[in-house]
Amino acid sequence: MNKNSSNIMALAPNTSNKRETVCIFGTGDFGRALGHKLIQSGYPVVFGSRSTQTSSLIPKDAEVLSHAEAAQKAAIIIIAIQRQHYNFLTPLAEILRGKVLVDISNNLKINQYPESNAEYLAQLVPGAKVVKAFNTVSAWALQSGTLDASRQVFVCGDDMEAKQMVMDIVRALGLTPLDQGSLLAAQEIENYPLQLFPMWKFPILLSLGLIAFFFFYCLIRDVIYPYVYENKDYSFFIAISITNRICPILALILLALVYLPGVLAAIIQLYRGTKYRRFPDWLDKWMLCRKQLGLVALAFASLHVLYTLVNPIRSFVRWRISSQTVSQALNNKTEPLNTTNAWLSDSYLALGILGFFLFVLLGITSLPSVSNNVNWREFRFVQSKLGYLTLVLCTAHTLVYGGKWFLSPSSYRWYLPRAYMLSLIIPCTVLVIKFVLIFPCLDRPLTRIRQGWERNPQYSE
Amino acid sequence: MNKNSSNIMALAPNTSNKRETVCIFGTGDFGRALGHKLIQSGYPVVFGSRSTQTSSLIPKDAEVLSHAEAAQKAAIIIIAIQRQHYNFLTPLAEILRGKVLVDISNNLKINQYPESNAEYLAQLVPGAKVVKAFNTVSAWALQSGTLDASRQVFVCGDDMEAKQMVMDIVRALGLTPLDQGSLLAAQEIENYPLQLFPMWKFPILLSLGLIAFFFFYCLIRDVIYPYVYENKDYSFFIAISITNRICPILALILLALVYLPGVLAAIIQLYRGTKYRRFPDWLDKWMLCRKQLGLVALAFASLHVLYTLVNPIRSFVRWRISSQTVSQALNNKTEPLNTTNAWLSDSYLALGILGFFLFVLLGITSLPSVSNNVNWREFRFVQSKLGYLTLVLCTAHTLVYGGKWFLSPSSYRWYLPRAYMLSLIIPCTVLVIKFVLIFPCLDRPLTRIRQGWERNPQYSE
Amino acid sequence: MNKNSSNIMALAPNTSNKRETVCIFGTGDFGRALGHKLIQSGYPVVFGSRSTQTSSLIPKDAEVLSHAEAAQKAAIIIIAIQRQHYNFLTPLAEILRGKVLVDISNNLKINQYPESNAEYLAQLVPGAKVVKAFNTVSAWALQSGTLDASRQVFVCGDDMEAKQMVMDIVRALGLTPLDQGSLLAAQEIENYPLQLFPMWKFPILLSLGLIAFFFFYCLIRDVIYPYVYENKDYSFFIAISITNRICPILALILLALVYLPGVLAAIIQLYRGTKYRRFPDWLDKWMLCRKQLGLVALAFASLHVLYTLVNPIRSFVRWRISSQTVSQALNNKTEPLNTTNAWLSDSYLALGILGFFLFVLLGITSLPSVSNNVNWREFRFVQSKLGYLTLVLCTAHTLVYGGKWFLSPSSYRWYLPRAYMLSLIIPCTVLVIKFVLIFPCLDRPLTRIRQGWERNPQYSE
Repeated sequence: MNKNSSNIMALAPNTSNKRETVCIFGTGDFGRALGHKLIQSGYPVVFGSRSTQTSSLIPKDAEVLSHAEAAQKAAIIIIAIQRQHYNFLTPLAEILRGKVLVDISNNLKINQYPESNAEYLAQLVPGAKVVKAFNTVSAWALQSGTLDASRQVFVCGDDMEAKQMVMDIVRALGLTPLDQGSLLAAQEIENYPLQLFPMWKFPILLSLGLIAFFFFYCLIRDVIYPYVYENKDYSFFIAISITNRICPILALILLALVYLPGVLAAIIQLYRGTKYRRFPDWLDKWMLCRKQLGLVALAFASLHVLYTLVNPIRSFVRWRISSQTVSQALNNKTEPLNTTNAWLSDSYLALGILGFFLFVLLGITSLPSVSNNVNWREFRFVQSKLGYLTLVLCTAHTLVYGGKWFLSPSSYRWYLPRAYMLSLIIPCTVLVIKFVLIFPCLDRPLTRIRQGWERNPQYSE
Repeated sequence: MNKNSSNIMALAPNTSNKRETVCIFGTGDFGRALGHKLIQSGYPVVFGSRSTQTSSLIPKDAEVLSHAEAAQKAAIIIIAIQRQHYNFLTPLAEILRGKVLVDISNNLKINQYPESNAEYLAQLVPGAKVVKAFNTVSAWALQSGTLDASRQVFVCGDDMEAKQMVMDIVRALGLTPLDQGSLLAAQEIENYPLQLFPMWKFPILLSLGLIAFFFFYCLIRDVIYPYVYENKDYSFFIAISITNRICPILALILLALVYLPGVLAAIIQLYRGTKYRRFPDWLDKWMLCRKQLGLVALAFASLHVLYTLVNPIRSFVRWRISSQTVSQALNNKTEPLNTTNAWLSDSYLALGILGFFLFVLLGITSLPSVSNNVNWREFRFVQSKLGYLTLVLCTAHTLVYGGKWFLSPSSYRWYLPRAYMLSLIIPCTVLVIKFVLIFPCLDRPLTRIRQGWERNPQYSE
Repeated sequence: MNKNSSNIMALAPNTSNKRETVCIFGTGDFGRALGHKLIQSGYPVVFGSRSTQTSSLIPKDAEVLSHAEAAQKAAIIIIAIQRQHYNFLTPLAEILRGKVLVDISNNLKINQYPESNAEYLAQLVPGAKVVKAFNTVSAWALQSGTLDASRQVFVCGDDMEAKQMVMDIVRALGLTPLDQGSLLAAQEIENYPLQLFPMWKFPILLSLGLIAFFFFYCLIRDVIYPYVYENKDYSFFIAISITNRICPILALILLALVYLPGVLAAIIQLYRGTKYRRFPDWLDKWMLCRKQLGLVALAFASLHVLYTLVNPIRSFVRWRISSQTVSQALNNKTEPLNTTNAWLSDSYLALGILGFFLFVLLGITSLPSVSNNVNWREFRFVQSKLGYLTLVLCTAHTLVYGGKWFLSPSSYRWYLPRAYMLSLIIPCTVLVIKFVLIFPCLDRPLTRIRQGWERNPQYSE
């Protein structure tokens, strides 16, 4: 129904007589914006304010009364006031008895107060039914109607009826209420709008670090070295050639880092002989951001594909191929087809394509709406089986690509090996450990440990 | 649970004794289809009809009785009758007291009647509990079991218990009920199935207009001009070359049009000195379809990428490159590498790749399931920061691509500049205005206005 | 709110006094894992067990009592015991009266018992309120906190209050409860975690069969034939050339198979003159997996695109082009541009690009979150109109690509036609039948039949 928002924008006079009055305490920006929107959706609105003189900012169709008078006019009271002023409600406790109080407040920091604002409000006015809602919506978005983003309004509260009334208002404003349970959820709801991609921080910082390292590494090998020894200016390599060397390296390393914590956890469990002790903190955190690591790896893999595919259009590549062909023609000879080369080139491309294809499949499966339609068994199958297959294919792609250079001395400039060789260290380690863990002598105890068995039930009395 | 639909298709005799009887008024196509499906799901079904003789069309396991008799057999009555015949229910009001009436009707036009059919029904039979449901499901889909599409059934009603009963039936049929609140939502639910991409109309019409204009523009410059002056037949340019000129132009213009209303709104607010006056209607509508504009732009950008990448495979391009190489060989000379050219070519490709990559990211973030998992702050960050970065990169891509031709007289055929030059007008305008708006002398008052401050609170008393 | 899982992992002592005690019957792996998680989320936990001596495996903060004592301490009792031991609950019936019993059990096979475990439990303890929940969550995932996958917990039960209490616990654990209605849904919920992509089996097996057939077909034509007659080793064709022949063939055939059941159904309905008889079983099943068929076809189409785009990078292709150019130069002639060839090459590429683009659009529309935001009319428009357009474009792409070879005798090696010719049979058949069905003399009766009309209402009395 999301598309109908334009209808809701319009004034709805024919329904206005059916809606129940809503009271708003506070005439600040958000209170006014919500008032506007409520009036547009056909709700009679009463503002409760310290000074009852109407200001130009308050919607014209709304009444402004004292707090006590306004509260008596409505069953639902929206508290559009900051937490530090909540105590003015204490004298009104008698009037607010049985009313639905909607807490819409937000904090400035995550976990700013020991208890959530909504729970604090419920303590101050024990006779009222407190419902937390609307805090994830911005006043600006509400006003301008540009609610492209989250139409979701998290609602929680201890009283089912009160929650239902608030959810009906949310729906009438063209938003989607999401019942989050009892008032205990308020803390989390209040923290929610303050986050900025918390799970993405580590993967993105890690990528930036790796990018910087490999950029200078490649710069030294591919631009500075030829400049020093051959006096050739390859600075234009920065735009595509070097970027296209960094992207696949990062994709491979990050993909391997997705599977590394899993094998580490298996080793720890085998060593400890139990699953009932918590992993070290860094491992826990690492495991929780594996999805994000994988998606960043996929982003680099996609860039690698694009950068590779534009190769034949590059002016430099066209010049190189054409000058090779011209020199062949001038030397009056045609080269025969090198079947080994054709095999190598075709198979590393085929491995890369299949690896990338599976990688994209993994990415699609991690879309929330897709992974919600998949049960645990299916998810494990995709993320574990297909995931390892992807890692195997991508590692093989890199190995076949560079196979011929491993032992060639020209690969080492200033004793630096080619960058892709560095990128192979982690994936190969992960694959080797995983391969070892598949052996029955290790797989069987591991499975038993994960089913709850303990080698040394040493902590029992 | 969507995958289980095949189970639900099968008859479910072992559960039939547990389900409560459902009554259906009306033996039209949808009533029968729903009856079939209910019986398959184990519900005893009673039809209420004017003529009680069983027709072959009615499911065999269903009883057919008079309206009054049928109504007495069940607590839930589905009204599969058109709105204009609802008044036959008035004499039955006594029998229908306390029953749950399910309104499944649809209209032929959006907002056909002043009140929704469900509300009309509730007025006619005041003692009954009216629930709106099933109107978004098609009889054909229900019958054939091909419910690939929207399994969602919007349900609304004033009585919580009645709504719950109907939602249970919806679930039992393998569909997903969506509680839309009180009966006030019925109007919107009834309008829903009549829409055909309402928000997409403007972006698509605009694109078609722009396509037509730029197609003829390029046709004149690239096919007719060389035909007239050089007598060369380049008509095959239509298939790829011209299309690949139109696609990036449209992508760039539409992307700029996504950000233009934002800067216009800022200018209007700065000029008015308040945010409390509504924008002109056209601006409001424009702002509401920005997401669709952006997605259409992304579609053109994707086509541009595909058309560009197939270039080296085109027979014409292969011929051109090969004949250049041959003529070089015949002239017995090898061209040296032009480093400036290599720089330009590589950087416009790199800018394009990065721009397209960010564009795809923006597109993924606008998927409903992704944007629902993102809070307002994160959404703003992605759509505003990353969005402008995309626009900057794409504009720079176009500028670097065509930089060398700006002042070349050969770019002007019949005084017509190259098409891409036209495409740069809007994006550059948007970026310049945005750049100006970032200056503190403009940014500070704008921020204050958006927080609710007014320069001339002239409308107050 | 999904991102907050790390918060929930932490111990939450400040909320522990607010949560109500939860009792868990059974100290098996899942019972303990759930206990751990509940304690972490601030719930006091009591275990009911046959032997009341605390084992090291049981969370330290939990009490262990006899079943009867434990049950008296809590309003909610989670039954973490296998179905075959449920009968030990019969003597406790009096103590369990009015309690909420949460059935979390799973079976080993789909539909293992005639009634679901939860319904069986409700029969055994008639005074208790049974709620089905948590069976889709794995103990390992619960323990390790790696709930990337389905955070969804399906909940069903006959008692609204009891269901609400359980859903609150689900939310408190950082999971998403999904109300599935009354206890009748328990069977389906218990079957859910046992499935492994049931709808994908047929499309994937079919693809594997077709891949095997076309692989050997192309191997004979493209590798063995030249080896026998020209003694050339083209074995490296296997990696890319042959794969890139199989992928488009499978994409086209599978796409046609998506639309074939629709036209077959139309023919059957026209022949029978009614829509009220069920289709043969194979047709029903075929229709239900059309979406999956289409997505597999899209996967092959995407691979085809990637394999085609890497062509210019292949060592073999570079060698072929360069040796052609060299031989042209050595023969001292430049070929003129063949306009017909340019037209053909450009138009088959353009058709392919447009077809693939629409195909991807169809794929995006079939994402759950997108198709949920689309009504029936819009879905029909996309899947039927755009779907057929895709089929037409892809078939035209193949026809134009191979047009010149149809009558060339060199296309037949050992009397085997080129593989793409075989792939055209089904799409052309579908398109011809669909074209015939559009004629009014067939379309009109079909539309009437689908609206419920019958030619021979022969089954009526």
